[in-house]
Amino acid sequence: MIIGLIGFGKVSQNIVDLIKSDDIEFITSLENRSSKTTEAIEKRKIKALDTFKEVAAASDILISANSPKNALEVAKSYGKYCNGIYLDLNNISPETTFKINEYVGDLVDGAIIGKIDSDNPTIYLSGKKSGELLFLDEFVNTFKISDEIGDAAILKLLRSTYTKTLSALLIESVEVAKEYDLENEFFEVLSLTEGENFREKSISRINNTLSNSKRKSEELDEIINYFIKNDLVMVKAALEKLSRFQP
Amino acid sequence: MIIGLIGFGKVSQNIVDLIKSDDIEFITSLENRSSKTTEAIEKRKIKALDTFKEVAAASDILISANSPKNALEVAKSYGKYCNGIYLDLNNISPETTFKINEYVGDLVDGAIIGKIDSDNPTIYLSGKKSGELLFLDEFVNTFKISDEIGDAAILKLLRSTYTKTLSALLIESVEVAKEYDLENEFFEVLSLTEGENFREKSISRINNTLSNSKRKSEELDEIINYFIKNDLVMVKAALEKLSRFQP
Repeated sequence: MIIGLIGFGKVSQNIVDLIKSDDIEFITSLENRSSKTTEAIEKRKIKALDTFKEVAAASDILISANSPKNALEVAKSYGKYCNGIYLDLNNISPETTFKINEYVGDLVDGAIIGKIDSDNPTIYLSGKKSGELLFLDEFVNTFKISDEIGDAAILKLLRSTYTKTLSALLIESVEVAKEYDLENEFFEVLSLTEGENFREKSISRINNTLSNSKRKSEELDEIINYFIKNDLVMVKAALEKLSRFQP
Repeated sequence: MIIGLIGFGKVSQNIVDLIKSDDIEFITSLENRSSKTTEAIEKRKIKALDTFKEVAAASDILISANSPKNALEVAKSYGKYCNGIYLDLNNISPETTFKINEYVGDLVDGAIIGKIDSDNPTIYLSGKKSGELLFLDEFVNTFKISDEIGDAAILKLLRSTYTKTLSALLIESVEVAKEYDLENEFFEVLSLTEGENFREKSISRINNTLSNSKRKSEELDEIINYFIKNDLVMVKAALEKLSRFQP
């Protein structure tokens, strides 16, 4: 089986590192690559064709793992040459996923949960052909959600709805606890019910959110707009909360 | 040592059941008691004096564990007769705690975290004399916060700030997940980072909040008003969220 890779950042590099099998050959192209990326490809001894068009045509599975803003362009350029399954692993919105579906035959929509460069990422898949990719579970935790394109992207938004709003709640709670000089006791008391790592996890969430508050706000905005019918009061409050930490 | 009990509901009953020591004698009174309470007292072979005034005067530690709305009245009536430590274990606001402090000599402000009728409740204490009650740790997890009256009550509010707002966030997230038929996947995906019991715990939080939404709203309102300087946008949103579930 031939797996073609468009994009060769963290995601593709880790996929190659995690999926070791005599039955699987990875291919890609050096077309318009930076020297750093070329090096990463050569280091892994991956076969490089002249063009991505050739990669698309030769792949049983074509993986698009680029930056979210290039995902649609990649699908427009190479989707039509792909005869196998086109697996989109970009961190994109459901809308972009639906648009990509117009340019690709057999699209599978994938969401990576957790850090891809951890030992143990999890991939959720949706789309009619996603069942055919479950063999990947031997190498990376892989689940099929449904036949519906977009479900993987929606699941990712649902996850963010919870985690990003939770961070805003932690920011607010700890703010008040600090004011009353009860920050330690706040974490202790909640550790009793929320688990022993509550303090560590919460502080990491707060710091991560505050140091990326502009990007987190954009993501909250995307959630509010996508689930607009639901009138998400908690997420709107989280957006308002984060706005107070922006210049 | 003599521990006097005013109020003989769940809290007092469990304290008697948890604290078993030859050095400690519990006393109370049957004055104005219901037959059910009298039975619970007699079952535990607790010495009953004629009046609560006598109980207050004879106690090294006088525990007030009544309904929150009676807590101040009890302090007004019996605080002046108490020569030992007056331990208030009612679920009361910081304001009520400060008022009680005007009627009581050596007040210790206690917050019970977790269900008192579990095997393993935890009690947080504040007030100058709270260190003298740390011997209770042999029977019930007991921590001293500080010398400041009110800190235990404030800690309880801080805990509620987090837990009650979190419930509103869970209600909102699961609402949307259900709409996209991704409720199971929502819980699964979050279990990866939030712990295996995330689903069970979340559903129990949601049900508990929705079936007591009026009381939970009142508690959120109390938090907003007590921490009014902090302008709690997340808690306000939680209150707004819960208002949608009220008749």
